Amino acid sequence: MKKSQQRIIKELEDIVGKANVIYHPEDLLVYEYDGSIDKAIPEAVVFPATTEEVSKLVALAHREDIPVVGRGSGTGLSGGAIASLGGLQIALTRMRGILEIDVVNGLAVVEPGVVNLDLDYEAHKYGMRYAPDPSSQKACSLGGNIAENAGGPHCLAYGVTTNHVLGMEVVLEDGSVTWLGGKTREVPGYDLRGVFVGSEGTFGIATKIVVRLLPLPESVHTLLGAFADVDSACNAVSSIIGKGIVPAAIEMIDAACIKAILNVTKGVLPSDAGAVLLVEVEGIEEEVKELSGEVEATMYDAGAEDVRVALEDQERERLWAARKGAFGALGSLAPNYYLVDGVVPRTRLNETLRRVAEIGERYGLLVANVFHAGDGNLHPCIAFDEREPGATDRVIQAGEEMVKVCVEMGGTLSGEHGIGLEKKAYMPLIFTQEDMDVMVRVRNSFSPNVRFNPGKIFPGGPEYDQAMQRKAVSSAGPGVYI
Amino acid sequence: MKKSQQRIIKELEDIVGKANVIYHPEDLLVYEYDGSIDKAIPEAVVFPATTEEVSKLVALAHREDIPVVGRGSGTGLSGGAIASLGGLQIALTRMRGILEIDVVNGLAVVEPGVVNLDLDYEAHKYGMRYAPDPSSQKACSLGGNIAENAGGPHCLAYGVTTNHVLGMEVVLEDGSVTWLGGKTREVPGYDLRGVFVGSEGTFGIATKIVVRLLPLPESVHTLLGAFADVDSACNAVSSIIGKGIVPAAIEMIDAACIKAILNVTKGVLPSDAGAVLLVEVEGIEEEVKELSGEVEATMYDAGAEDVRVALEDQERERLWAARKGAFGALGSLAPNYYLVDGVVPRTRLNETLRRVAEIGERYGLLVANVFHAGDGNLHPCIAFDEREPGATDRVIQAGEEMVKVCVEMGGTLSGEHGIGLEKKAYMPLIFTQEDMDVMVRVRNSFSPNVRFNPGKIFPGGPEYDQAMQRKAVSSAGPGVYI
Repeated sequence: MKKSQQRIIKELEDIVGKANVIYHPEDLLVYEYDGSIDKAIPEAVVFPATTEEVSKLVALAHREDIPVVGRGSGTGLSGGAIASLGGLQIALTRMRGILEIDVVNGLAVVEPGVVNLDLDYEAHKYGMRYAPDPSSQKACSLGGNIAENAGGPHCLAYGVTTNHVLGMEVVLEDGSVTWLGGKTREVPGYDLRGVFVGSEGTFGIATKIVVRLLPLPESVHTLLGAFADVDSACNAVSSIIGKGIVPAAIEMIDAACIKAILNVTKGVLPSDAGAVLLVEVEGIEEEVKELSGEVEATMYDAGAEDVRVALEDQERERLWAARKGAFGALGSLAPNYYLVDGVVPRTRLNETLRRVAEIGERYGLLVANVFHAGDGNLHPCIAFDEREPGATDRVIQAGEEMVKVCVEMGGTLSGEHGIGLEKKAYMPLIFTQEDMDVMVRVRNSFSPNVRFNPGKIFPGGPEYDQAMQRKAVSSAGPGVYI
Repeated sequence: MKKSQQRIIKELEDIVGKANVIYHPEDLLVYEYDGSIDKAIPEAVVFPATTEEVSKLVALAHREDIPVVGRGSGTGLSGGAIASLGGLQIALTRMRGILEIDVVNGLAVVEPGVVNLDLDYEAHKYGMRYAPDPSSQKACSLGGNIAENAGGPHCLAYGVTTNHVLGMEVVLEDGSVTWLGGKTREVPGYDLRGVFVGSEGTFGIATKIVVRLLPLPESVHTLLGAFADVDSACNAVSSIIGKGIVPAAIEMIDAACIKAILNVTKGVLPSDAGAVLLVEVEGIEEEVKELSGEVEATMYDAGAEDVRVALEDQERERLWAARKGAFGALGSLAPNYYLVDGVVPRTRLNETLRRVAEIGERYGLLVANVFHAGDGNLHPCIAFDEREPGATDRVIQAGEEMVKVCVEMGGTLSGEHGIGLEKKAYMPLIFTQEDMDVMVRVRNSFSPNVRFNPGKIFPGGPEYDQAMQRKAVSSAGPGVYI
């Protein structure tokens, strides 16, 4: 180890303690990837416990001109938590305190490492909940949710992360600590809170987060509609929405994905369906009964072959576990998968899915779909084996074509997974150079030295080579992916 | 008129037509104020009809280094539409096309001059609505709503303007036209849409707006609870929210304001109440019946002397007309009023209102309250007569004290009216110089030459003298204020 490295490691250890600094190459390996297919190894990973420690770490990195990458649980799907240029990774996993639950004002104050579902469970004790529910909610952290402005099945009715974050304490690149937003929904001045949410870790590191909590619904029904094909399931989605019903969630699972799920959980879904819809309605008892009946009738009208209504928590949870574990289950079809994330206007779902299927066929790739149909947020998932020569390249090419189809349909590049490393090359599909210049200037308003997460979001520039690191991860994680 | 002025007026006329340029001093008078107490006269007002015209006007102003102030309906309450440095005012009132209503995708595309309520009425034809409903909704424009990130009674359940804007076509300071956001809720890259909303006209001019539409509720009940005093009404608010009920709106009106309203509309409110709560619940029939019963019982438990439930549209509309016309009605108490806007955590409403009353007494001023109690968004309204020597100064001083109390209570400067001219001096109460520096840099990312709405939001600087223009408007507009 070089002298200068020794000195910096020593300083890091002085800030967070010897036990909370990792720098041996073999220890760093586990921090080289997230839920995406890109990889890069940081030079050191630190685990601060307080805002003060984060501030000192960032100030040190600033002084020494070291890139800083914040990391939550590493479940991201676009390479956002990957230290693509090396440097210092600040893992927020030790900062997992739920500092305050305020029922009357409907909010909680948490640290960034708090796991999404842990907050939700804690809120349940008070009759409340935290609404955004990424499929990775068992593992993903609220800090990461903020960085990516995470979505989830229930965002159809409740909106994505930014709609549920009131304020944040953040550490900026010089180590200074400030608040963006606060405990009230309305805040004067520019909405810096809003632009920080979804900035993919490039503006700074959130060290405390104020989130909204909503009351738990009195009653919840989950309906499972079985359809002959994706087309008729899409029509059912349009009919439900067209009737002015806004369910809490409308998720679609196609035949390939049903098969994968059934490999893991026998009997949870109908094995002969061409597509299923998972629709959740919630509210007070009477409302839910009426809505549930209406959704059921609408699905039958649109050609459903069968509709089951799950009233019991246990049955509902089983269905949701199947849905949220879908990507993990794809591991039963092939050793690797590549998850595409795109959005189209709801009315163009059928057409888009047909073209996605055509692309899969043309490349000879197995494509499974499980996604937020109500939002028009597609997740074609390409299952493959990276050991097959040329497979990874074909997969990436097919994924690119699928993203381009979404854009062509009047949709966009990414619904909820972010741009990160994965899609920076596609940014020019929807943004002009001038648009990106404005974004870069906004980033520079927070971080003029590009201290945080350099090499992400924006294409080109000397700092990152497109071709680098395009390798698939070797196995399909523990079912935590969206 | 100077030669250079003649030349610029001629160019303006070439862009928008002779009939759409105003520059004679007597014609400009009506554009010297908005709904606040500040005044300043622009040098010319233009009325473009298309994005292309706006773009040409801005490019011309940019070339000639003329400040540009966008103006909607002029109902703003913090001086946001006032040309405080003179210059060119671009009034968007001719751009009032509702370009598209898309029921299945739940959105509308409108021009910035569309009046809030006109869009809502148009949406009703399709069984939809536009949720944010500022009290000025009969007059205020969607462009202005975006500039100020406007709120309204129903924002308790549905969120403020930014939660309902999907995208905008905007003209930047060099005259270039770009889109921020689009037709889908999720957009990759930084959320420039989000930071543009609420930027108080300092980033650019929105020329097309994509907004979300929500389905109209099947049933609506409006409850009117009469209480002996403000304290017990506040307790009722906390009890309702504490039970996990989120009504569409919870508005409070105190005795002074009830009196003013009754001067204008006989019998609409109970004349002997110390405070009333207007609570609206909506959804499907059964849900509304149950919620309405629960809210009624909760109000009685909290000490309500009487609760009336308005089921019929006509009765409900009468109550809301009284609420939304409250500020206009204050004209029956005194010729002028000054409206304060602050936010406190809901749990500190009682204490804050007591201190606001004390301040009013100390200054010998009549203070009436009508406000969004569910959101903790206060609107103490000071009624006075500007012809009384020193009255205006006392009013402004009392207002400042009230704002400071809100901040002391853990709240903030402004709930929904913006900073504009009115509150720029108070920004340091909640923001450090570093915070404001970041905001200024973000503004400069969009508009490095401070082309739009200079002299607003930020205190100090050579461009604006605090003491200037601090005069009250001479009469209490046509009841359009929040």
